Amino acid sequence: MSEHIVSSYDNDLENLRRSIAEMGGVAEKMLAEATEALVRRDTTLAQAVIVADKRLDVLQREIEERSVLLIARRQPLAIDLRETISGIRVAGDLERIGDLAKNIAKRVVAISDQAQPQKIVLGVQHMSDLVQEQLKDVLDAYASRDTAAAHDVWERDGAIDALYNSLFRELLTYMMEDPRNISFCTHLLFCAKNVERIGDHTTNVAETIHYLATGEAPAGERPKNDASNYATVLPGA
Amino acid sequence: MSEHIVSSYDNDLENLRRSIAEMGGVAEKMLAEATEALVRRDTTLAQAVIVADKRLDVLQREIEERSVLLIARRQPLAIDLRETISGIRVAGDLERIGDLAKNIAKRVVAISDQAQPQKIVLGVQHMSDLVQEQLKDVLDAYASRDTAAAHDVWERDGAIDALYNSLFRELLTYMMEDPRNISFCTHLLFCAKNVERIGDHTTNVAETIHYLATGEAPAGERPKNDASNYATVLPGA
Repeated sequence: MSEHIVSSYDNDLENLRRSIAEMGGVAEKMLAEATEALVRRDTTLAQAVIVADKRLDVLQREIEERSVLLIARRQPLAIDLRETISGIRVAGDLERIGDLAKNIAKRVVAISDQAQPQKIVLGVQHMSDLVQEQLKDVLDAYASRDTAAAHDVWERDGAIDALYNSLFRELLTYMMEDPRNISFCTHLLFCAKNVERIGDHTTNVAETIHYLATGEAPAGERPKNDASNYATVLPGA
Repeated sequence: MSEHIVSSYDNDLENLRRSIAEMGGVAEKMLAEATEALVRRDTTLAQAVIVADKRLDVLQREIEERSVLLIARRQPLAIDLRETISGIRVAGDLERIGDLAKNIAKRVVAISDQAQPQKIVLGVQHMSDLVQEQLKDVLDAYASRDTAAAHDVWERDGAIDALYNSLFRELLTYMMEDPRNISFCTHLLFCAKNVERIGDHTTNVAETIHYLATGEAPAGERPKNDASNYATVLPGA
């Protein structure tokens, strides 16, 4: 579409899309850097992640208020209205992803002085790698309105939950083996839980893409495999 | 105001307020019952909490969609527009509170077969009692548009964070004393974290009340006292 026939309303929607893409970029970077900070015990990088979260909060509030003004001024119907509602929802999920990444970064500061076998951290890193891929894929799917790709992300969340579940048990086992691991592993448990919840938010975005295309929530239950809420590990087990 | 002079727009806003009040009631009940289920190890009550969360999800989506339709149809300005944005925000916080209460209920099921000293649970109960009071007060403040009461809730969140911090250390100490406590105490740690985050969401609602009245976010930083992200406990300490 050449520039002179683009209406002011299209411009507003385009700006909304651009802000959400910016939020997506910040959230992706925060998760990648929080994980890198955890693996390398890099408190400087962790502090940078904590600071980056402020930008995400500002962007979310702007998107929310601009979307609502856009609705009030333009009175969009059907697909355009859904686009605006979807923008508000996706911005909310990305803001939460930033909060969770920031929380991982804060924990990196907490455990920076504790010498622990690096292999315990690798499980969290592996899980984060998978979630980063999910996040990238779902942001691409949102930008290109690709419901098939969104559905693919939606289905893969079960694998992340299963991974979290096994990591949860593994970390509990380390704690039982040696009480000196408890403090460190507790922070890792929360880090892993944060990564799992970031996975849930990518699933939310996938559902929003489905809603954007169809006006409906996806049929069927989410592919949840998170049994860790029910998991217990006994000493010596 | 007698019924015949109430405009259709006022009716829409009134319905929005009523739905939010219903969500608030469900969320309060879920937190109270999840805590009671935890203290009494009552898995039947815990299951009821898990089921109740579905109603909250439905109500949130309805509020979001109805608010946006209301904006599109009525083009409200200034205070009425803020009322609608605020409704979307508060509904989002209440939905998250329900999720967190549901997660506590799921953990009650996990630890139901473990015999542990009841006193460990009492710290979580005490924290939950405080948060329930905050939640009640902030919902009242929202219903009556009482910014002074909202500010009071906002300031009290620091005390809950401080309590969580001390509970975090206490639970880590129990884990170090006896590895048989680890599995149980890990679930309690997550329960306590959930309660602390419910406190954060009540603070969000308090901020929304301020925004509703003034059109601005509250000045100054949140009174955060949550040092537990940085806390570590050493064995024997």
